[in-house]
Amino acid sequence: MTPKKIAEKTVERLIVIHRILVSQKANNIKFIYSHEIAKLSGLSAPQIRRDLMLVGYSGSPAKGYDVSKLKNTINTFLGFKKNKEAVLVGLGYLGRALLGYFNGQDSNIKFSMAFDINPERVNRIISGVNCYHIDEMGSRLSSSNINICVIAVPKQSAQEVAWTAVDNKIISILNFAPQHLRVPENVHVENLDLMTMLEKAAYYSME
Amino acid sequence: MTPKKIAEKTVERLIVIHRILVSQKANNIKFIYSHEIAKLSGLSAPQIRRDLMLVGYSGSPAKGYDVSKLKNTINTFLGFKKNKEAVLVGLGYLGRALLGYFNGQDSNIKFSMAFDINPERVNRIISGVNCYHIDEMGSRLSSSNINICVIAVPKQSAQEVAWTAVDNKIISILNFAPQHLRVPENVHVENLDLMTMLEKAAYYSME
Repeated sequence: MTPKKIAEKTVERLIVIHRILVSQKANNIKFIYSHEIAKLSGLSAPQIRRDLMLVGYSGSPAKGYDVSKLKNTINTFLGFKKNKEAVLVGLGYLGRALLGYFNGQDSNIKFSMAFDINPERVNRIISGVNCYHIDEMGSRLSSSNINICVIAVPKQSAQEVAWTAVDNKIISILNFAPQHLRVPENVHVENLDLMTMLEKAAYYSME
Repeated sequence: MTPKKIAEKTVERLIVIHRILVSQKANNIKFIYSHEIAKLSGLSAPQIRRDLMLVGYSGSPAKGYDVSKLKNTINTFLGFKKNKEAVLVGLGYLGRALLGYFNGQDSNIKFSMAFDINPERVNRIISGVNCYHIDEMGSRLSSSNINICVIAVPKQSAQEVAWTAVDNKIISILNFAPQHLRVPENVHVENLDLMTMLEKAAYYSME
């Protein structure tokens, strides 16, 4: 299995399908058809069938896919592990919301520490997460096994945070700062600029 | 000008370029080359030149693009208006953060009202925004000129909120709920599922 060769869009779709299966399983649904996953996800049924062929699982024409088995197959295919840890940098409005939001979800990923430059926001526990001063970021990351970093700092600070992160084991970044990050080639950056998304929504609101 | 025919990805890139120009202008930068925009945005310089040809503005080979004029040209091309209003539904962690985050930015778009089902979160002002009970959503929207709605409610409630929204003038939705929304064909939905993004970051953190 060489998961890194899967197209990013396929990874995204498999994650969406996986989450639907988790929720169906929680509702005691045993079998599901591709057209039902389509309705719940907004993906097309043929696309779903292609993606699921890729993970090597085929349903029964009579009953559909076995929810629990398919969920486990995708889980293995994507290499998801239990209790994956992540770190958050930036405890402003957005950062604090992300901590509360993410750690309140039923997910394999939990934030286990957070950093900020503001003394009033650190040396305390927010949403169950220990918050430290940004000066401690390098040493605490390097003595941990965390390799995912979520950046929610103002754009002027984002690049510096990214350097500290990649210098200390981080290989995947989810970046909320509206700032293009320069990182080594082996580091994955996922940009999520909320203001761009809102401006895009505004564009499509024009009559 | 028929802006609705522009590809979504082009719209996104133009918004990103526009924001860079706004920030360059604030720093008193008068001219900028495509390769400088490339460095700041992460887009490629040829792509930027193609996008800017589309909006009908060409730079001078000697000095680059006139920052202020190019900014205004994109502004007109995308049809951005001053003081565009939006509504937020859901005042949990994420919703409150979005209000604070968005209304604290230098942007043309402001939230002018918000709704929630929880009595403790309504009939008050949060981040300068009047917050009302969800029961008032239909009547308040229909008597307003707002046509952008940001949905930040739990997934079980998202579809119902979307129906109320589209029944009351909303034609563009930014949806943070991990729920596929069924809406009429003329309504644009932008999905932003934070947990999927985090799980994607986790996928790329596997060594």
